[in-house]
Amino acid sequence: MNIKKHFIERTSVTNKALKVFIKVLHDVPPILRKSMLYSLSAGGKRLRPVLLIATYEIFGGKKEDVLPAACAIEMIHTYSLIHDDLPSLDNDDLRRGKPTNHKVFGEALAVLAGDALLTNAFTVLGHNAETGKIKEKNVFDCMRILAKHAGAGGMVGGQTADLQAEGFLHGKKRSVHLSKTFLKRADKLLNYIHLHKTADLICASVEMGAVLASASLKDFKHLSNYARCIGLAFQIVDDVLDIVGDKKKLGKKGSDARNKKLTYVSLFGIEESNIHAASLISKAHEELDKVSGSAKAKEVLHEIADFIMKRDK
Amino acid sequence: MNIKKHFIERTSVTNKALKVFIKVLHDVPPILRKSMLYSLSAGGKRLRPVLLIATYEIFGGKKEDVLPAACAIEMIHTYSLIHDDLPSLDNDDLRRGKPTNHKVFGEALAVLAGDALLTNAFTVLGHNAETGKIKEKNVFDCMRILAKHAGAGGMVGGQTADLQAEGFLHGKKRSVHLSKTFLKRADKLLNYIHLHKTADLICASVEMGAVLASASLKDFKHLSNYARCIGLAFQIVDDVLDIVGDKKKLGKKGSDARNKKLTYVSLFGIEESNIHAASLISKAHEELDKVSGSAKAKEVLHEIADFIMKRDK
Repeated sequence: MNIKKHFIERTSVTNKALKVFIKVLHDVPPILRKSMLYSLSAGGKRLRPVLLIATYEIFGGKKEDVLPAACAIEMIHTYSLIHDDLPSLDNDDLRRGKPTNHKVFGEALAVLAGDALLTNAFTVLGHNAETGKIKEKNVFDCMRILAKHAGAGGMVGGQTADLQAEGFLHGKKRSVHLSKTFLKRADKLLNYIHLHKTADLICASVEMGAVLASASLKDFKHLSNYARCIGLAFQIVDDVLDIVGDKKKLGKKGSDARNKKLTYVSLFGIEESNIHAASLISKAHEELDKVSGSAKAKEVLHEIADFIMKRDK
Repeated sequence: MNIKKHFIERTSVTNKALKVFIKVLHDVPPILRKSMLYSLSAGGKRLRPVLLIATYEIFGGKKEDVLPAACAIEMIHTYSLIHDDLPSLDNDDLRRGKPTNHKVFGEALAVLAGDALLTNAFTVLGHNAETGKIKEKNVFDCMRILAKHAGAGGMVGGQTADLQAEGFLHGKKRSVHLSKTFLKRADKLLNYIHLHKTADLICASVEMGAVLASASLKDFKHLSNYARCIGLAFQIVDDVLDIVGDKKKLGKKGSDARNKKLTYVSLFGIEESNIHAASLISKAHEELDKVSGSAKAKEVLHEIADFIMKRDK
């Protein structure tokens, strides 16, 4: 299969559905809708919707059945980027090659557009109970999964730890110069950050796809493990690209290095980071092999794992 | 009945439950939990939880059955205050007599604590499916009600319109000097702001109480109308207090006047505002009379309507 072609097709389907879901929202001030749509339309691979749909399809369903849930997860992701870019957080001017939300709409509206995308993700997810293909109970469970992975013990917790870790390495250089105790502490903190800041929302995507398909508990667990592995690898590759990546392709400056963030690369160097990411991808394939269903049905998820390792933006 | 005593008792029950729900959240960075608890513990009447519980009790249920939902609505209210106080929005230093969240924890953490309270409100609401007294389907419906009233076409929409209306009256004085066309436009905008910025979350509280009790559609509608009326009155009284209230009792400076906000008072003056609020309260009583159940069962909601009109903070 051609994973790039698959992404192009699924990105297009997701983009169309996102626009529809935002446009049908009732009684929204035009400027707020515009600000929400601006960030939702700023491009991106739609990795999380693609993962959710691909997981659901393993069990024989059609993508149309779960588009609301796929859009909901992308809305959560987009809100997190808007708030993360704010002057008081990462203070980024560019995102996906375009001015960040607060640069265009001002800080107040960027806060509100983020709040709206986060809240309305639950409204859009609720629509999944109306497709006629999904049990209401499964949509309810998805809401709980989404809130868990996106909240204080999930993504927001990860962002908080990420902020706190700024300057953690201040004055310190590569791992050879650091004590074992320091490295252990840093590794633990880094693992918390990666797990929650990035992997949690990727886990939510896959877990929601599984729950919407009424997957067995055994399959759910292996899929969740798969998602955690690719999520952790995704963040390590992101940190590597922040240093060595083509800024034009990334569409942003390397603000992590600028902000002296604690990253896998700043701690262990590029080579070690690549080795660790590769071992996570290998583990992801193993977990996926344990999920019931034909190899063909799971092909997309295997390809996505490899794609995460090979991406250059 | 003694409504003040009722508030004291229910505020205490809600406060205890809120602390428990935040403390049991798993894997949360201590500083984030502290920031969330700080704003949740900053006092307040807990009007929304009290309304939710009182509505549920009309139909014979016990308050313990719906404490998760009551806490969820307060978490949404608290997040909205944290974000509303941010320097880029209302730029308030005091809230309920205490320094605002960003004054204590910094702007970045205030954004994140708000995001966490908003997201975890859905987690806490989800727990209501575990009390054994409430149908899962009803909790699911509550999630949709909450997202609708709190989101882009609800509270966040109202906050956006409120921001946009700043300076709307710039250079203009009392209604006697304003043209009919201008007044009509201003009144429409003001109605949108009040309906969504304030009344929507009060509607959500009452509607959730009704849904959790499996109320009939007819009762639901009358209760929703009641809530809209007291919600609109609440905001008008708030605007009056912003001008004439005792700043010590209010625990904040009158930032609306400072920010040149469009309010009922700035448009129609204090006397007209009080008359309008009173007529809304009267309409609220009428709607409540149409709800099934004994007068005794609905006493608390009647008292709350009157309390909103008479409050001095």
